[in-house]
Amino acid sequence: MNTPAPGANAAAETLSEETVDALVRAGTSGEQPAKGAHPHEALLSARAANIKQSAVRDVFEISMQPGLVSLAGGNPYLQSLPLDRLGATAAAIIAEHGLEALQYGGGQGTLELRTQICEVMAAEGIMDADPENVVITAGSQSAQDVAAKVFCDPGDVILLEDPTYVGALNTFEAYEVDVQPVAGDEHGIIPEQLRARINELQAEGKRIKLLYTIPNFNNPSGVMLAPERRQEIVDICREANILVLEDNPYGLLKFDGVLPEPLRAANPDDVLYLGSFSKIFAPGLRIGWALVPAHLKQRYYLASEAVTLCPPTFNQLLVSDYLNNYDWMGQIRTYRALYQERCTALLEALDEFMPEGVTWTRPEGGFFVWLTLPTGIDSYPLLYQGIDAGVVFVPGAAFTVTEGPSNKLRLAFSAVPPALLRTGVERLAPVLAKAIADNF
Amino acid sequence: MNTPAPGANAAAETLSEETVDALVRAGTSGEQPAKGAHPHEALLSARAANIKQSAVRDVFEISMQPGLVSLAGGNPYLQSLPLDRLGATAAAIIAEHGLEALQYGGGQGTLELRTQICEVMAAEGIMDADPENVVITAGSQSAQDVAAKVFCDPGDVILLEDPTYVGALNTFEAYEVDVQPVAGDEHGIIPEQLRARINELQAEGKRIKLLYTIPNFNNPSGVMLAPERRQEIVDICREANILVLEDNPYGLLKFDGVLPEPLRAANPDDVLYLGSFSKIFAPGLRIGWALVPAHLKQRYYLASEAVTLCPPTFNQLLVSDYLNNYDWMGQIRTYRALYQERCTALLEALDEFMPEGVTWTRPEGGFFVWLTLPTGIDSYPLLYQGIDAGVVFVPGAAFTVTEGPSNKLRLAFSAVPPALLRTGVERLAPVLAKAIADNF
Repeated sequence: MNTPAPGANAAAETLSEETVDALVRAGTSGEQPAKGAHPHEALLSARAANIKQSAVRDVFEISMQPGLVSLAGGNPYLQSLPLDRLGATAAAIIAEHGLEALQYGGGQGTLELRTQICEVMAAEGIMDADPENVVITAGSQSAQDVAAKVFCDPGDVILLEDPTYVGALNTFEAYEVDVQPVAGDEHGIIPEQLRARINELQAEGKRIKLLYTIPNFNNPSGVMLAPERRQEIVDICREANILVLEDNPYGLLKFDGVLPEPLRAANPDDVLYLGSFSKIFAPGLRIGWALVPAHLKQRYYLASEAVTLCPPTFNQLLVSDYLNNYDWMGQIRTYRALYQERCTALLEALDEFMPEGVTWTRPEGGFFVWLTLPTGIDSYPLLYQGIDAGVVFVPGAAFTVTEGPSNKLRLAFSAVPPALLRTGVERLAPVLAKAIADNF
Repeated sequence: MNTPAPGANAAAETLSEETVDALVRAGTSGEQPAKGAHPHEALLSARAANIKQSAVRDVFEISMQPGLVSLAGGNPYLQSLPLDRLGATAAAIIAEHGLEALQYGGGQGTLELRTQICEVMAAEGIMDADPENVVITAGSQSAQDVAAKVFCDPGDVILLEDPTYVGALNTFEAYEVDVQPVAGDEHGIIPEQLRARINELQAEGKRIKLLYTIPNFNNPSGVMLAPERRQEIVDICREANILVLEDNPYGLLKFDGVLPEPLRAANPDDVLYLGSFSKIFAPGLRIGWALVPAHLKQRYYLASEAVTLCPPTFNQLLVSDYLNNYDWMGQIRTYRALYQERCTALLEALDEFMPEGVTWTRPEGGFFVWLTLPTGIDSYPLLYQGIDAGVVFVPGAAFTVTEGPSNKLRLAFSAVPPALLRTGVERLAPVLAKAIADNF
């Protein structure tokens, strides 16, 4: 077990799995996996062909070399957690409640944790959540998987922000979903565009099932959906009988702590809400949840159970103890200050070093800044040049369903201390400057 | 957190989730879920209609009443684990390696645990497993889910033993798989029957993708596939281009420790092998694995990643430490003796109390004994009579794809001390005797 030393060694930080997915996805445009001669190829499902792979996975190995500054991984910074105390808590859970912690549990998750999750959601702005309608899942990735399973037949449409979370794209495409982007701006999805897109797709005879949205600090763009657009977006979806799938892992991480209302807040029947402990506590425990409209809960719960039987009991007990006996809101305030400092450092470095022609978002929370290069530049080959220069990022093509090259790229500030963020940007700048010069 | 006291309190033991599934399944024959008036019903996928629910879930609550002897739950007996020491291990992992344990990890699982899993598989009789081809999953339930996802389009056939594991049935049917039973006897699947069934189904134009089998101590029947049939079954499948999905959670729990070779052992390209720590260590950690033929591994791995992103890191580190620093084979020997004692107690009680006309299997390992009542008796209504008499079991209809009533039932001996097993059977006997008398 190798544990990176805090701080200084973050340069050698491993890329998160989500990042690897993103890199893989970025490299797949137009490629088809080579077909082997084995007769088992004939056994693969149609959906298996939609599950991407790529030679870019090689980059993973390269990018782990020491000395590289990784602006790729969207990992939370766990160094500020009270690890010794958490260890003692884990010990007590196993020693005193081991027969429960190590045993099978209920498929919906423990009632205690579901009740506590309602308190977490109250902090997020949802005041009426009922533990009966909470389903605990293996991270919110698994909650997305179940949503696609319950609602989408092959060819059904899920509308989503463009760009959006690579893991959700992978999950939806694994169900042969037709993922369709909706245009947005620096304030998120534009209601008029959503309405137009729905009309367009319905005119083509498409069945639109879900709108998947990360309204707070979208991964990768960092954009927050404007509060004044939120109810209109739900209304448009309700009118068109489209369920909103609201993914809110970063909501509590708004730097100033003044949180906009989730889409779910005033719309209990129209929004399936996904939450996660990955960004506010510990992703390695894989505990997320879905708050499901009451009329859909039983369907959703049974489908979830058919995937994993039950969420890990020990992990639920550890999260429960953390919520009961630790100052979890204080920890979130610590994270807000920490991530704000890093975001500011990254933005200042970008201001200082970026060549003319590059623009970027200025997020109010979350983990990511989204860069736009001049039209015509493909950020994907720049990944390799970046690695040569000692910095790694995720090319924009990873996060979009739009075919062809992308002139965007994602920088993550969550896991990297301010000084290293500056170093990373300093290394990235000449790579981008050269690409811009070559583009003329 | 309620922890049942060891031993005496096993009567009030909660039903495992798998058991609840089984009960639910048993009650669904012919029922369709009531359609609500909500327009979201139109959003459900075709597969969602295959995900069962039932009023029998009410039985769950009833069956938790104190004083009931539960022969329903297939829970391992964790009381013999060194809980204090495991607690200290968990504490050390979080205190010393918390930044790794609580962080995202690789989608395939840690290399350390995948390497150790190859040693576990060596104990199971597979000598050539490569950690590169191991994918760690959220229990082997999740590994089954991924297999169905990668290989099965709606209408594709998975062949399976009848009866078979209820969780697998639920998982496969959630992908609209056409599950087709293959006839077996007290020595498992009959090769000639398998060949005939394949020919029959292929003649009907069906696409057969997988043979799902639990060759060692099948859940629910307790039957072991005869060693001399094993290679022939693989050969038949290879010839028909059907991949074998071998599920072996109970293999190491053969009472005499003389283990038959897994189907995978001599057939690395033809068998996708599923293993689990749920029965030999701790189900509450949800750590299982798939050993995938090399030519299919990348597909399988990427699909697994699209469901859960990565398996829980902390849980993997705890299992790794357990395998490194504990006498895990000694613990398995303890389990073998313990489960053999319970199995013997159950069989002796059946010999003593069962009325004429009831027959049952005599397993050499695993957790379950399978009872057959005279033809014409439906075991499902007897469930309620059993509960009234203070004993709960799982009706046979749960474990079969055959429509209509079942005259079978499953008794689990794993979680119940010998004296209570005797009490349970003593309570069950008059219920069955009355049903037999009424059947004339």
